[in-house]
Amino acid sequence: MITLHHLRIGRSIFTVWLLEELGLDYKLKVYHRHPQTFRSQEDLKEATPLGKSPTLEIDGVMLTESGAIAAYLVDHYDPEGKLAPPRSDKQAWAEFQRWLHYPEGSAFLPLFMRMLQAREGDNPSPVHKAFADGEVPLHLGLLDKQLADRDYILGDTFQAPDIGVTYICNMAERLGELGPYKNLQAYYQRNMERPAWKRAKERAVE
Amino acid sequence: MITLHHLRIGRSIFTVWLLEELGLDYKLKVYHRHPQTFRSQEDLKEATPLGKSPTLEIDGVMLTESGAIAAYLVDHYDPEGKLAPPRSDKQAWAEFQRWLHYPEGSAFLPLFMRMLQAREGDNPSPVHKAFADGEVPLHLGLLDKQLADRDYILGDTFQAPDIGVTYICNMAERLGELGPYKNLQAYYQRNMERPAWKRAKERAVE
Repeated sequence: MITLHHLRIGRSIFTVWLLEELGLDYKLKVYHRHPQTFRSQEDLKEATPLGKSPTLEIDGVMLTESGAIAAYLVDHYDPEGKLAPPRSDKQAWAEFQRWLHYPEGSAFLPLFMRMLQAREGDNPSPVHKAFADGEVPLHLGLLDKQLADRDYILGDTFQAPDIGVTYICNMAERLGELGPYKNLQAYYQRNMERPAWKRAKERAVE
Repeated sequence: MITLHHLRIGRSIFTVWLLEELGLDYKLKVYHRHPQTFRSQEDLKEATPLGKSPTLEIDGVMLTESGAIAAYLVDHYDPEGKLAPPRSDKQAWAEFQRWLHYPEGSAFLPLFMRMLQAREGDNPSPVHKAFADGEVPLHLGLLDKQLADRDYILGDTFQAPDIGVTYICNMAERLGELGPYKNLQAYYQRNMERPAWKRAKERAVE
């Protein structure tokens, strides 16, 4: 049995999407944010190693980290290689690894800083703002360029790293940062039309 | 030929360490930070996809992301499985993936925020400070607990994820945050004694 510990309104819906793309059976254990602080609550802290979501309970382990969950699922639950290149293709495998780590390892940080900045109102920290001002366009610009001549991040088929990159698009859109990046906008819309995403939304957003 | 694009004073020395642990032949292409801004300069931006370090040039690709580089190197250049568990051991492989993604995917962000906060002097942003105040002890506490009954992050042998976790220790130490975490301190000292780390330092810090 696969169980996803899913905190409502947050990144774990993107793991639900991956489970749907792979056509797996899984159970959702749903947690709710504190209505005032919008943080996770004790129930999630008690159930998972870091009190973080997504956490996937699978094969006897509690697996955390969106990218690690994706790597593990394609390793063991994608026998036809729908969402990953063959491991024997070294170049394709290198690119796959790079983009699997990229969303959480690089692009998330400046967007998250932007999100906190929005809570600072008219008095943002100049140091944090300067960092985000430099890094947000660097990352969104890189993605937009990557998508100039291809439909998906690794070429002409949707693969596991597209899920993490779509999460980055989702954050950028909510922060009003996606406007200037036309290729990225089109990519985001394209992925939101996928049947597996729609099933994930239906199941994870009650 | 393996070439590491290495920006002096920063995380890429940890990739040098991994190359030394694996006993690989590689070339270092060294870049220097701007003496005033301490940021990377045009030479690194021109040479690598994001102007970021580490970038590893290998098998015809420019591979970025510390975690992706580690995953790729153990996949293709660690035939004896010195630094990774056998892929057939599903539980061990899940834990390996989790801890490979964890340093950059989770622990780095609040420590980096702390680093920026140090530049804000006596007037830190309350929003960013509150986030780091909550998250830094959460992550360092998790690592300290993980190391209470084992020498390395995955058990009794040093594996690839220990390099990323040691980088987190290194940041925490430079920020004066490592003091309360005795297991983590001992782990950090233990890893700093490894011959491969000493060779990396000698080669990467001229």
